[in-house]
Amino acid sequence: MTGKASNESQSSKHIVIALGGNAILKSHQRGIAEEQLENIRITCEQILDMIANGHNIIITHGNGPQVGNLLIQQEGAHSKVPAMPMDICGAMSQGQIGYMLEQVLHNLLQAKGINRDVLTVVTQVMVNSDDPAFRNPTKPVGPFYDAETKERYEREKNYIIKDVKPGNHRPFRRVVPSPNPLRILEAKALKRLVDAGIIIIASGGGGIPVAMDSKGNYHGVEAVIDKDLAGEKLAEAVIADLLLILTDVEKVFLNFGTPKQRALDLVRLEKAKAYQREGHFSPGSMGPKVEACLRFLEFGGERAIITSLDKASSALEGKTGTHFIP
Amino acid sequence: MTGKASNESQSSKHIVIALGGNAILKSHQRGIAEEQLENIRITCEQILDMIANGHNIIITHGNGPQVGNLLIQQEGAHSKVPAMPMDICGAMSQGQIGYMLEQVLHNLLQAKGINRDVLTVVTQVMVNSDDPAFRNPTKPVGPFYDAETKERYEREKNYIIKDVKPGNHRPFRRVVPSPNPLRILEAKALKRLVDAGIIIIASGGGGIPVAMDSKGNYHGVEAVIDKDLAGEKLAEAVIADLLLILTDVEKVFLNFGTPKQRALDLVRLEKAKAYQREGHFSPGSMGPKVEACLRFLEFGGERAIITSLDKASSALEGKTGTHFIP
Repeated sequence: MTGKASNESQSSKHIVIALGGNAILKSHQRGIAEEQLENIRITCEQILDMIANGHNIIITHGNGPQVGNLLIQQEGAHSKVPAMPMDICGAMSQGQIGYMLEQVLHNLLQAKGINRDVLTVVTQVMVNSDDPAFRNPTKPVGPFYDAETKERYEREKNYIIKDVKPGNHRPFRRVVPSPNPLRILEAKALKRLVDAGIIIIASGGGGIPVAMDSKGNYHGVEAVIDKDLAGEKLAEAVIADLLLILTDVEKVFLNFGTPKQRALDLVRLEKAKAYQREGHFSPGSMGPKVEACLRFLEFGGERAIITSLDKASSALEGKTGTHFIP
Repeated sequence: MTGKASNESQSSKHIVIALGGNAILKSHQRGIAEEQLENIRITCEQILDMIANGHNIIITHGNGPQVGNLLIQQEGAHSKVPAMPMDICGAMSQGQIGYMLEQVLHNLLQAKGINRDVLTVVTQVMVNSDDPAFRNPTKPVGPFYDAETKERYEREKNYIIKDVKPGNHRPFRRVVPSPNPLRILEAKALKRLVDAGIIIIASGGGGIPVAMDSKGNYHGVEAVIDKDLAGEKLAEAVIADLLLILTDVEKVFLNFGTPKQRALDLVRLEKAKAYQREGHFSPGSMGPKVEACLRFLEFGGERAIITSLDKASSALEGKTGTHFIP
């Protein structure tokens, strides 16, 4: 059924891989460096075959736990050193995660005798400062607060803070907007690098969100862009053939969590849009991933796949995963 | 006397610019983001003319205060979230500073109607794990400690801690090795980007120091590479024509701080080596800068210049600065 991908897997493709949070840090882990490096090793093992097969790989990744830890550290030490705003924390997490991915992947390639360069690029993603998301912040970030801290930060820092874990001792958390990504600022350079066969790590954590002011200047904004939607913009920037979104589940489901639940194998764009309109894909989890796939097909992409990390290679061979085609 | 540089300034050169710490954060400042962005704006104004004149610019920079703040934050919150090792903190600081430089420089170029891409690349620099520096750590990093903390960290973390401010309440500080940089791991990709006319920010903070183990794998090490010596390796990587080291002083002095003090204008390599042997350049400040210039000339570089940030343009025109030539 998904045999087309299999037939094509021998020719060289530009493939954007969007790694889910669990590719770098599992939810039960504290996040020490060794844990992250070991997770990344397992993740990169999955990607190795694609590179060995001659594909040009562009990796993007989440940064939730890492930037969360940074925000906790920034707040914890604010009496000693100034806390950085969210855009700068995002840039830090791109450096951190990119470095780990780059090093581990390089070592694995080296051991396999594959001589390919890997490069991490700090990536800014433009958003519209009029995006409706700025009027309705929804994305929780940073530490949990008690009622007293909540009120203080609302007063002192103008934070918008919501009750995200009702009944808990510290139920409150800051929420920030999650605006729509418009374009990758470093697009031209990224395209050049990918075309030269360099493996790229870019747009980490959905990219650093920046908006343009009336003078044409970019400046960072306090927001978090969905990493799969930003990954789709990255796929447009490098004119990728395939978008591969790796997450916790092997396939996307219709009627998820009901007795009528059914896995999707191959879906055409128009049919997928109908499923989307019918509300099959939850806004907090599968929704943005499916949306990223559909946007990629509308841009002209050949195929978008959602599957689990450990099925990446076999999904690319057409053996599993949910495949979206035009 | 330094007219050669002036005559050549019209043709397009590859110029590596090594920014001193004061280019990003002044020593009396706390380091809030706005201060850093404003300093960076003033710094980038100095570089703008070179770009307008068609030169290909590769920027490297220090990260002392930024990584220092990160280490304080990491330690301060260690009971809540795990502290990252120094190599990862270095990678974070590259993301942070690179992002700020890239954005500010892009905005200034845009305002001048100059359409050039700016890209920040996470950069690893290889060192030899047998480097004698590992047996004699000298570079102070992170917070100051009292005697109790000093003893605890020596015991628990195997830190080497020295009395760097004798007589103070918190006189102790961790010292790490400062090994010699051997090569930039991302060299090939960087060369390609520079040749394509993309303005590069790389090797921040002297690069992330990595060593190779017996299996050929790279891993991060707890060390700090001198940023000017790493900048020289960057100049080799991109086959730069000029190395421009920007610091606090307009010129290098012989017999600095004595009645016989004399500024250097133009020095040939062999003469400079003689001055170096005579001990004119202090190991803690001008020594590594002069050493970087001499290594660059020995590599085949055309000219290396040491001057102050505000004299960058006129030094490039041959009007001031200390110029080293083969």
